[in-house]
Amino acid sequence: MEALLQDVAAGSVAVDDAVHRLASGPMSGISDLGFARLDTHRGLRTGDPEVVYGEGKTPEQVLAILGELANLSSSRPALATRLPEAVLPLLRETFPDALVDEAARAVAVGPLPVPVGTVCVVAAGTSDGPVAAEAAFVARAFGAEVTRVDDVGVAGLHRVVAARPVLESADCLVVVAGMEGALPSVVGGLTGVPLVAVPTSVGYGASYGGVAALLAMLNSCAPGVVVCNIDNGFGAGVFAARVARRAHRAAP
Amino acid sequence: MEALLQDVAAGSVAVDDAVHRLASGPMSGISDLGFARLDTHRGLRTGDPEVVYGEGKTPEQVLAILGELANLSSSRPALATRLPEAVLPLLRETFPDALVDEAARAVAVGPLPVPVGTVCVVAAGTSDGPVAAEAAFVARAFGAEVTRVDDVGVAGLHRVVAARPVLESADCLVVVAGMEGALPSVVGGLTGVPLVAVPTSVGYGASYGGVAALLAMLNSCAPGVVVCNIDNGFGAGVFAARVARRAHRAAP
Amino acid sequence: MEALLQDVAAGSVAVDDAVHRLASGPMSGISDLGFARLDTHRGLRTGDPEVVYGEGKTPEQVLAILGELANLSSSRPALATRLPEAVLPLLRETFPDALVDEAARAVAVGPLPVPVGTVCVVAAGTSDGPVAAEAAFVARAFGAEVTRVDDVGVAGLHRVVAARPVLESADCLVVVAGMEGALPSVVGGLTGVPLVAVPTSVGYGASYGGVAALLAMLNSCAPGVVVCNIDNGFGAGVFAARVARRAHRAAP
Amino acid sequence: MEALLQDVAAGSVAVDDAVHRLASGPMSGISDLGFARLDTHRGLRTGDPEVVYGEGKTPEQVLAILGELANLSSSRPALATRLPEAVLPLLRETFPDALVDEAARAVAVGPLPVPVGTVCVVAAGTSDGPVAAEAAFVARAFGAEVTRVDDVGVAGLHRVVAARPVLESADCLVVVAGMEGALPSVVGGLTGVPLVAVPTSVGYGASYGGVAALLAMLNSCAPGVVVCNIDNGFGAGVFAARVARRAHRAAP
Amino acid sequence: MEALLQDVAAGSVAVDDAVHRLASGPMSGISDLGFARLDTHRGLRTGDPEVVYGEGKTPEQVLAILGELANLSSSRPALATRLPEAVLPLLRETFPDALVDEAARAVAVGPLPVPVGTVCVVAAGTSDGPVAAEAAFVARAFGAEVTRVDDVGVAGLHRVVAARPVLESADCLVVVAGMEGALPSVVGGLTGVPLVAVPTSVGYGASYGGVAALLAMLNSCAPGVVVCNIDNGFGAGVFAARVARRAHRAAP
Amino acid sequence: MEALLQDVAAGSVAVDDAVHRLASGPMSGISDLGFARLDTHRGLRTGDPEVVYGEGKTPEQVLAILGELANLSSSRPALATRLPEAVLPLLRETFPDALVDEAARAVAVGPLPVPVGTVCVVAAGTSDGPVAAEAAFVARAFGAEVTRVDDVGVAGLHRVVAARPVLESADCLVVVAGMEGALPSVVGGLTGVPLVAVPTSVGYGASYGGVAALLAMLNSCAPGVVVCNIDNGFGAGVFAARVARRAHRAAP
Amino acid sequence: MEALLQDVAAGSVAVDDAVHRLASGPMSGISDLGFARLDTHRGLRTGDPEVVYGEGKTPEQVLAILGELANLSSSRPALATRLPEAVLPLLRETFPDALVDEAARAVAVGPLPVPVGTVCVVAAGTSDGPVAAEAAFVARAFGAEVTRVDDVGVAGLHRVVAARPVLESADCLVVVAGMEGALPSVVGGLTGVPLVAVPTSVGYGASYGGVAALLAMLNSCAPGVVVCNIDNGFGAGVFAARVARRAHRAAP
Amino acid sequence: MEALLQDVAAGSVAVDDAVHRLASGPMSGISDLGFARLDTHRGLRTGDPEVVYGEGKTPEQVLAILGELANLSSSRPALATRLPEAVLPLLRETFPDALVDEAARAVAVGPLPVPVGTVCVVAAGTSDGPVAAEAAFVARAFGAEVTRVDDVGVAGLHRVVAARPVLESADCLVVVAGMEGALPSVVGGLTGVPLVAVPTSVGYGASYGGVAALLAMLNSCAPGVVVCNIDNGFGAGVFAARVARRAHRAAP
Repeated sequence: MEALLQDVAAGSVAVDDAVHRLASGPMSGISDLGFARLDTHRGLRTGDPEVVYGEGKTPEQVLAILGELANLSSSRPALATRLPEAVLPLLRETFPDALVDEAARAVAVGPLPVPVGTVCVVAAGTSDGPVAAEAAFVARAFGAEVTRVDDVGVAGLHRVVAARPVLESADCLVVVAGMEGALPSVVGGLTGVPLVAVPTSVGYGASYGGVAALLAMLNSCAPGVVVCNIDNGFGAGVFAARVARRAHRAAP
Repeated sequence: MEALLQDVAAGSVAVDDAVHRLASGPMSGISDLGFARLDTHRGLRTGDPEVVYGEGKTPEQVLAILGELANLSSSRPALATRLPEAVLPLLRETFPDALVDEAARAVAVGPLPVPVGTVCVVAAGTSDGPVAAEAAFVARAFGAEVTRVDDVGVAGLHRVVAARPVLESADCLVVVAGMEGALPSVVGGLTGVPLVAVPTSVGYGASYGGVAALLAMLNSCAPGVVVCNIDNGFGAGVFAARVARRAHRAAP
Repeated sequence: MEALLQDVAAGSVAVDDAVHRLASGPMSGISDLGFARLDTHRGLRTGDPEVVYGEGKTPEQVLAILGELANLSSSRPALATRLPEAVLPLLRETFPDALVDEAARAVAVGPLPVPVGTVCVVAAGTSDGPVAAEAAFVARAFGAEVTRVDDVGVAGLHRVVAARPVLESADCLVVVAGMEGALPSVVGGLTGVPLVAVPTSVGYGASYGGVAALLAMLNSCAPGVVVCNIDNGFGAGVFAARVARRAHRAAP
Repeated sequence: MEALLQDVAAGSVAVDDAVHRLASGPMSGISDLGFARLDTHRGLRTGDPEVVYGEGKTPEQVLAILGELANLSSSRPALATRLPEAVLPLLRETFPDALVDEAARAVAVGPLPVPVGTVCVVAAGTSDGPVAAEAAFVARAFGAEVTRVDDVGVAGLHRVVAARPVLESADCLVVVAGMEGALPSVVGGLTGVPLVAVPTSVGYGASYGGVAALLAMLNSCAPGVVVCNIDNGFGAGVFAARVARRAHRAAP
Repeated sequence: MEALLQDVAAGSVAVDDAVHRLASGPMSGISDLGFARLDTHRGLRTGDPEVVYGEGKTPEQVLAILGELANLSSSRPALATRLPEAVLPLLRETFPDALVDEAARAVAVGPLPVPVGTVCVVAAGTSDGPVAAEAAFVARAFGAEVTRVDDVGVAGLHRVVAARPVLESADCLVVVAGMEGALPSVVGGLTGVPLVAVPTSVGYGASYGGVAALLAMLNSCAPGVVVCNIDNGFGAGVFAARVARRAHRAAP
Repeated sequence: MEALLQDVAAGSVAVDDAVHRLASGPMSGISDLGFARLDTHRGLRTGDPEVVYGEGKTPEQVLAILGELANLSSSRPALATRLPEAVLPLLRETFPDALVDEAARAVAVGPLPVPVGTVCVVAAGTSDGPVAAEAAFVARAFGAEVTRVDDVGVAGLHRVVAARPVLESADCLVVVAGMEGALPSVVGGLTGVPLVAVPTSVGYGASYGGVAALLAMLNSCAPGVVVCNIDNGFGAGVFAARVARRAHRAAP
Repeated sequence: MEALLQDVAAGSVAVDDAVHRLASGPMSGISDLGFARLDTHRGLRTGDPEVVYGEGKTPEQVLAILGELANLSSSRPALATRLPEAVLPLLRETFPDALVDEAARAVAVGPLPVPVGTVCVVAAGTSDGPVAAEAAFVARAFGAEVTRVDDVGVAGLHRVVAARPVLESADCLVVVAGMEGALPSVVGGLTGVPLVAVPTSVGYGASYGGVAALLAMLNSCAPGVVVCNIDNGFGAGVFAARVARRAHRAAP
Repeated sequence: MEALLQDVAAGSVAVDDAVHRLASGPMSGISDLGFARLDTHRGLRTGDPEVVYGEGKTPEQVLAILGELANLSSSRPALATRLPEAVLPLLRETFPDALVDEAARAVAVGPLPVPVGTVCVVAAGTSDGPVAAEAAFVARAFGAEVTRVDDVGVAGLHRVVAARPVLESADCLVVVAGMEGALPSVVGGLTGVPLVAVPTSVGYGASYGGVAALLAMLNSCAPGVVVCNIDNGFGAGVFAARVARRAHRAAP
């Protein structure tokens, strides 16, 4: 904006023109694909580019948006998550160098950034795997190193206690659990590393698609546990990567 | 019933009379106090007498029912729970030998039975104290020895792990917790002693008066956890005492 | 741990080594299958081994875990529950001697233990059958004798009253009901045998997948009724078997 | 309307005038008290006059409406329900002949109608008393004979079974219960008399102010159970009286 | 029972034998089909026989129970409701004289009783048709004459007002509505005929499968509205037929 | 009605006949198609004709009702919404001139009215498209000009701020959003144009099929936001068209 | 902004200065009172000034904000709603000319605007009075004429039908109802005037503080009904006044 | 533990003794005050000491625990939150140097740590003040610098946009909002600083004590928003301080 105003001051840009540019011109931060209008300024505002949410989109739409996003940024890969099975072959064909993670149902087009800081993704049971995989994939693609600790449900405490050194060496934890969602409370009592809890829809009966785990995590007696939406590995990965990167940025 | 039928067979009881007796006569198992009709046969049917639920009753009603129940049984004390503060002085005056437990808001009139078997009542936090006290009081009055383990929230695992020998020596556990209700899952992973979980209404915000803890306990990943109503120390105490007594009854 | 410490005291085990072993060595109690990490110490801690929950697992995963669990224990069969229809033929082929219960959708690999104590499984209606079958199968496999009382809904009281002798002869009851879930209250008024209630998702409209029955059971006016998750025949069977075994263990 | 049209046909009433009368004239069926507009035609349309719902009204408002309603009908008393404690003395003073029922918190001004048919009000526990009293008071004031069966909770079945003859002799049953709300299912299995179930807010924890009982009654396995709002003794009384009166009306 | 006791008095039945018979003998009121145990005494106790609920049963099970029920009663047809499409052809083949109602998904085997009294079934919209059809079918099969008023939603009041004479001529109304469930309030303000409201699962978004209509009906401002479970045309039909029959029984 | 009464006054219509006509005669406003009874007077009463709700109707029913509605009005097209995919080809064939909107799953038979006033439909994301399309289609068919602003989620504020001139030029706004439903609050803070918010079922986990967005909109801190049912583009379109038409009607 | 940019172009304002002014200078639209920061630009953006929400504010805070708002605008009065009883005397003293509405618990400081267009506020029962009063007060203060129709519950349809001419003469309706919330559906079927429904928390039992009415209104079968938050007379009044003013603005 | 094991190896500690010490000896990490057992090792495990939750505790209990905690740590103050009004005077008297924050209802005994990193606490409205104050107080006491941005509701976007520089200069944001909870989505779209959202119970009607805001935050369309329990300023403060401290720790 400052540049534009200097042009106005210098007379090289007319006032009318400046008004228009500020409101809707090339700085509008919108890339219109017809069926979608991308927020091309998100990277500038938040440091992280927009990501394609694949659910409910046609393969053609996913490919088009991914291609556009890949053009917009050179420092970060273009990402898509929650991809339907059927999209994966087409993606591999269109972007042969893309990194495809089947467990996470996610893809990255373009080279991954050099990792800064470490995110540790902890999962209570095997059924929580896909959500943990999404969190891990996204945290890595958003610029953090990632470690994994799996299958450490609270009914066998020795498994999670044994993992304490790995937990302690991370800059941010993502703890994924379904059913009664008790794992974040136990982990949060073992370490002071910032901890993001992710409830999953794993369970049956009165688990209500993850509500039991969600409520447990919101009410955790371990101080400093924060929570994402049910099955939201994506959000946890974004948040944790931001914390991890920040913990290792170069001193000013 | 058999005795009555033999009298019928012997002709000493008329058929009409027998029909009436079977339907509503002295075997009706009801003691009518005007404002309440006691189930005097409950002890015969279930081995445990009826108990006064004090909430919403006037002091006079509580005293009248307690007196009637005390008359009905000599082997077990007459109990009242959920007593309003205001009833306690009157109770002490009317039944000077009564055992009054202020934490549990409960009273026993008549000598306690010789304990058989052990119930261990475990509580996550100090705020869970009243519910734990009610469970302990009732389990003792229903005939079990009682041990206590307090303040062993899952955010400090060493506290509950240290209590493992006490847990193992019990015949039945009552595990009381509010907030995220994770303690039964952790205890249920440490020992195979039958475990009754009691959610409490301790918490705020999205704990919803104990719903978060209740759902967590119903969804526990530790196998064999069973659950009582929110704040229902009474029911847990009754159930645990029955299990404990049964574990130590004389061989037939 | 004591053994290890004695080795340390004797100098046969170095301090560093002991620290490592305590944390993550052969005592870690974890068997890593790649896609799952089994809690091999659960039997030691709780007296009952881990069980495979079949829902959401591939047939290959179920077979692999079952095989591993069968190797871990000789005194107890390896169990799997909630098996998808499609897994059963493969299971019969791989484990020809396995006990397969189609109603319960469960399987046991290895000989059943000699039963100790009796669990009686009571079901309100025919639709509650699968949950009752799961409870019965698990209770038997966890070491109890099992009796069944079926189709005794409260709208025909004579059916449940007629079953009173069978109920009384058990060491623990599992009472399974959907819809309004009233059966545990009625049974709990007829007998003092410890009673585990299991709500089922049987019903429609305002039954909300078992919520109506669950709430009814949590609020039972019969003292000492405890409750499992909706459709959780497994948990009820585990719990009831533990109570029944305990009621008949040899005197110390 | 027919009379008015005949006047129009006869020319004794102008067309304009008839239009106005039909829309808002003396046939409008509204009595405007300033703070309330009574539905004076309700008796004509439904056979039963409007009733004052006392909650949230000032004593002066209750008295004014009662007085107006008493003027409107000679064959039926004017009723008020849900009266605050503080209104009762003023009511007794203003209407010395009024029938005041303290348990029901209700009042009738004017003579009760000759009863036709019988309503039996059944209550599970003493705490359900006020709702049962309201149902009984209203059923009597709406023209039915009323019988009562109290304290017949399902945990002591002999009490309700003993009452079967009284139940059978009624033309409509009102069954009042809180907690798990199982009583209507049991009663509905014992008799085919039309049965209206009323859940009460009696209970704690997961009873949710009567929701547990409401859901149980809606899901009753006894066919033909219908349900009122929680604590709605008034509605049950009105409905049951209508059924009972109809069962004994003179043949045409 | 009286007959049996007279035999005991006469010595023609031994006491032991009588005890056994009373508990579980031929009077037990149970017909055991292996996969189901019918309540054969329901007709004696309630005046109406048991009915087959078809959902979740195999065609063979439906046929077997229907056949058994048809044998048990000559005065009333054997009924089955909620029949899956696939069962109907088999039913027609096995019971060629059966009355099959495709809209109601119900069937009656055996002649319908002579109707006594009239039930009027009112439906708000075309989508409420199946539930209204079930109510009408059941009310007729349980012994009442049935009239129908369809498509009288409250957004076009003239339609329901025009139907007032039909409503008034009935002995009991069944009012079926989904969405906002307002129709029972409007009808209940037009007439004093006993009114049973049935919410349906018709609607979308915040109708929550009939919850919006259910709550509206429970909170109706028209006095004397009683409510069935969502989509429960069966229960409404049973109840309404009982009320209608009673309104026209012969004077004693 | 006045005409009829004048005929009565003139003696050309008998009183009995007039009574019948007023109750159910040709003025009854009902067109009976056998399977449905149309409210033919709705246009007279409300200015807008009835519309076919396609969900759950057979193609034949949709065609029949559409044809009937098209006959009833010449000034407005006959509309059908929520059409199943399968109905569209048949519709095109039967009504070749019909306007078919595939995104909105809606159709208009007959010429659209000349637009009066402007409705602006604003959508937060691409997934909200179908609901926005339905609102836009209906608003146009109900007589308003329609503008669209798409893909202006609150996480990229510049997009919605840039659209302010378009928003300001409308007579009524329809703001469609899923997930957290924040867009109406932001738009409602930018302009005072009447704003109807429509929550959509877009989202996952704790969005509960649109509940999160619905609650957010009901609790909007921007004054004057009103809300429709979840996914109810139809209702929003009707309402907004009425407001827009009214804002531009000719002065009296 | 244009003026500022012209100054920049003219060199009379430095670039740095312009940047600062645009971000936080005198155009910031914020008036900071220490305990609150008023949105002084709301009138410019939306045409309507900010209003004081009294609940939870001290009398001093209410007075200070009211005074500040009164200074900001001369064309519109400063408003406060949801005022605690205790604030009213102090308000009358400080602003002797203020318009105080006790039923609405609201106040206006400064002359009311000349009314443009008409809002009709319709209430189902006397208990809905305070919400209706708030809606009426706010609609008048926001510039519309207001008419009232009270006590027209759907159980007495003649009352609401009689009011049809008043409804038709309005530019926007506000329909207020508690309990089953059926009134908007009935009114919305009688007229096509834009209709805003306001559910109230009037009711008991399963009305859940207005949820029953809220759901009913969201699911109204009358097309074009929009809904406000429970008891939100304020929002309905703001919205309705905007619609009414717009319907009568001078032609451009 | 290593030290102890070396003693064992050296023979200076007996094996039995070591076992006992490891299980429950001086390393047990528990300080028993009779009415509470403090987790004295929490600081060692997590870097942050335990905090007194004041709600439901007597003033004496608060003072005793605060005193004990103050003794345990010299580097960090002892904290208490959610203090009842009545406790504050006693606290000031006992700990004259304590830092008391009345808005936050919190107190710190002992010097605050030198701040490392910055937490910015953002609040939507004045009513959100107490929760924001608690978050700010705790973040400062847990070692972070704190900045505040108040009263920046989304209905006046210019207020939050103007604060962007302050937001950007923080290491972690805490965004507090009630009602529709939209602020975190807007802030999360403006900046990539890690953002913790705290829903408050501010609102009425369908805000359900903060549920509307909680759901909105969980479903935020801005990536990387994490959420705390309703009104949980404490948890947000702890978490944010940990992130901020970590972002500025000395390089290794």
